[in-house]
Amino acid sequence: MTTDAVKLTADLIRCPSVTPAEGGALKLLDDLLSSAGFDCTRVDRGGISNLFARWGQKGHARTFGFNGHTDVVPVGDEAAWTMSPFGAEVKGGVLYGRGATDMKSGVAAFAAAAIDLVQGTPPDGAVILTITGDEEGDAVDGTTALLDHMAAAGERMSVCLVGEPTCPDHMGEMMKIGRRGSMTAWFTVTGVQGHAAYPHRARNPLPALVRLIDRLASHEMDQGSDHFDASTLAVVTIDTGNPATNVIPAQGGAAVNIRFNDLHSGVSVTEWLQSEADHVAKEFDVAIDLRVKISGESFLTPPGALSDLVASAVEAETGMVPVLSTTGGTSDARFIKDHCPVVEFGLVGRTMHQVDECVEVAQIEQLKQVYARILRDYFA
Amino acid sequence: MTTDAVKLTADLIRCPSVTPAEGGALKLLDDLLSSAGFDCTRVDRGGISNLFARWGQKGHARTFGFNGHTDVVPVGDEAAWTMSPFGAEVKGGVLYGRGATDMKSGVAAFAAAAIDLVQGTPPDGAVILTITGDEEGDAVDGTTALLDHMAAAGERMSVCLVGEPTCPDHMGEMMKIGRRGSMTAWFTVTGVQGHAAYPHRARNPLPALVRLIDRLASHEMDQGSDHFDASTLAVVTIDTGNPATNVIPAQGGAAVNIRFNDLHSGVSVTEWLQSEADHVAKEFDVAIDLRVKISGESFLTPPGALSDLVASAVEAETGMVPVLSTTGGTSDARFIKDHCPVVEFGLVGRTMHQVDECVEVAQIEQLKQVYARILRDYFA
Repeated sequence: MTTDAVKLTADLIRCPSVTPAEGGALKLLDDLLSSAGFDCTRVDRGGISNLFARWGQKGHARTFGFNGHTDVVPVGDEAAWTMSPFGAEVKGGVLYGRGATDMKSGVAAFAAAAIDLVQGTPPDGAVILTITGDEEGDAVDGTTALLDHMAAAGERMSVCLVGEPTCPDHMGEMMKIGRRGSMTAWFTVTGVQGHAAYPHRARNPLPALVRLIDRLASHEMDQGSDHFDASTLAVVTIDTGNPATNVIPAQGGAAVNIRFNDLHSGVSVTEWLQSEADHVAKEFDVAIDLRVKISGESFLTPPGALSDLVASAVEAETGMVPVLSTTGGTSDARFIKDHCPVVEFGLVGRTMHQVDECVEVAQIEQLKQVYARILRDYFA
Repeated sequence: MTTDAVKLTADLIRCPSVTPAEGGALKLLDDLLSSAGFDCTRVDRGGISNLFARWGQKGHARTFGFNGHTDVVPVGDEAAWTMSPFGAEVKGGVLYGRGATDMKSGVAAFAAAAIDLVQGTPPDGAVILTITGDEEGDAVDGTTALLDHMAAAGERMSVCLVGEPTCPDHMGEMMKIGRRGSMTAWFTVTGVQGHAAYPHRARNPLPALVRLIDRLASHEMDQGSDHFDASTLAVVTIDTGNPATNVIPAQGGAAVNIRFNDLHSGVSVTEWLQSEADHVAKEFDVAIDLRVKISGESFLTPPGALSDLVASAVEAETGMVPVLSTTGGTSDARFIKDHCPVVEFGLVGRTMHQVDECVEVAQIEQLKQVYARILRDYFA
């Protein structure tokens, strides 16, 4: 008897685990995996629940790891949903609900594949599942807490597959072997307030701000590298909040969001931003404050044994040769890359974070088959 | 017996005529001027009170006009005042209260001078006082309403003196023979929203906005003209209001405030702004909407009989030769210039619109003497 990944996905959707709430999702998996012979540990930190599960010998040299999350983004405009966000209703072969693609189906698929594996002919090796309840939120006490727990407990994955959605349109067309780094920078320019009729008596911060942002926005950071697209900078907001048209404001601010490839680091980008700010501050005789938050450095698991393993399983099950991509936002792979080689493969993510998030039932089955084949091939 | 301009100023300050409230100020002047033989008409429009007062023959070829306002700006942070804003208290020879300089003292000084004139040896001519309750607000139903009333009633001033504060630091040092034009322009740039990780799929309006504002802010409109300082453009606000650092916004906006001299007009400046917006919109493939509000065109009463008359009276009473200036914000002279030659002279405006607004008692007396001498010389 095999484990029903579709039913498991539906059961998980019915747990209202809107980040950071656990919503019963991890308990459900804990019970299921424990019954199947996994050694389960709840790793709770900072009010966040996480689940560590291992089957097989601790520290085995052939330990395959899966990583995923059960927390989901908020429902958003509930009135706009045509299906119940936590109802897990199926209509026309499609399963609806928050987390249907991101990523309760992914967790269900790898949990089901892992259970089937160990309940069939047990492999010579170990399987570790790390499942977090803090990926959509701050991600401070999620996968990081699990990795800290593993380090302290002497647990180790040889390789890891993150089950996030990776395919833009068609099942099997893309996997990820790295991610660009991500950071946000906030600039605050301070001058001297004054009357708009006498600009020479004030020191307007806004001309300096627009010059700085223009310089940043029109700069080409690079043209891409071997495995990465070009780095990008997006101006996300510029704000003053001055309601009086006859007043020159004392201060203005802007934020830019940067996705950088392996030609840069958070530090090198910060240095560039600081030098640009200094240059403009001097030219306009204003003060410019820079604050940055680096969400993740870029990383790459170079094409090799792990990516070959996953790609050939994907091709065998879907007929598609997956592109080895490094595009997209961040994922928890950015933490795992310091632990072991990590790649990502999952289903089509088109409706993630949207109203009426949904997944084709057949795609969940197919994803489980891909994961099952990866496990078989890994332990063969 | 002469009219006490200081007492009249204090009485006016005690009327809480925060724009657009009449506060009893115009009634007080109406009663006083009527008793002195002026033909008074209340010109009320759009909920605003104004006062038209004429002594002498209607349509006389030698009609001297004064213009002023009794409405005042709000008290602001009342807790920060050390004197009562409507108490008209005198301390150390200084009279305190909202409107002390802007411009209840000016109104009191010209009303007192005019009453003294007509009650002494009546001149061969006429005196018209136009006093509005809508200068600090929208100025839509104030001096404009008075001028409309005069046009309909066949009333005409030969020349006009506006009693706004005109001296930066010392009584007598500056008068105004014109003003720069004033306008505000609002730009709204619209692109296509998207995820910050995929800027090529969005069309970010903010790089276009900063380029446009940088072009405007760094442009030299002119280097001044014979009687005017250089035109100025002040960027007053830039706003997006996007709280999500991973989202490229669909729209951003900015406002600029422009003070332009007689080398420009509201129309010519608007054309320039529109051409800049079109240029940037094309370059960045975004839509840029431009909205303008022209508060006043620039105007000039070229140096001549009227400015000579006022300047020589100022010099005789204060010992200072006033500079003929066109600096500063707007005043109701921008409306009167279409009716007759108009200049402005008043006291030191340093504390206008501020906490503890105040005026030296001696300066009110001196201002009345200046106005009295102007009237004597005009009718001589």
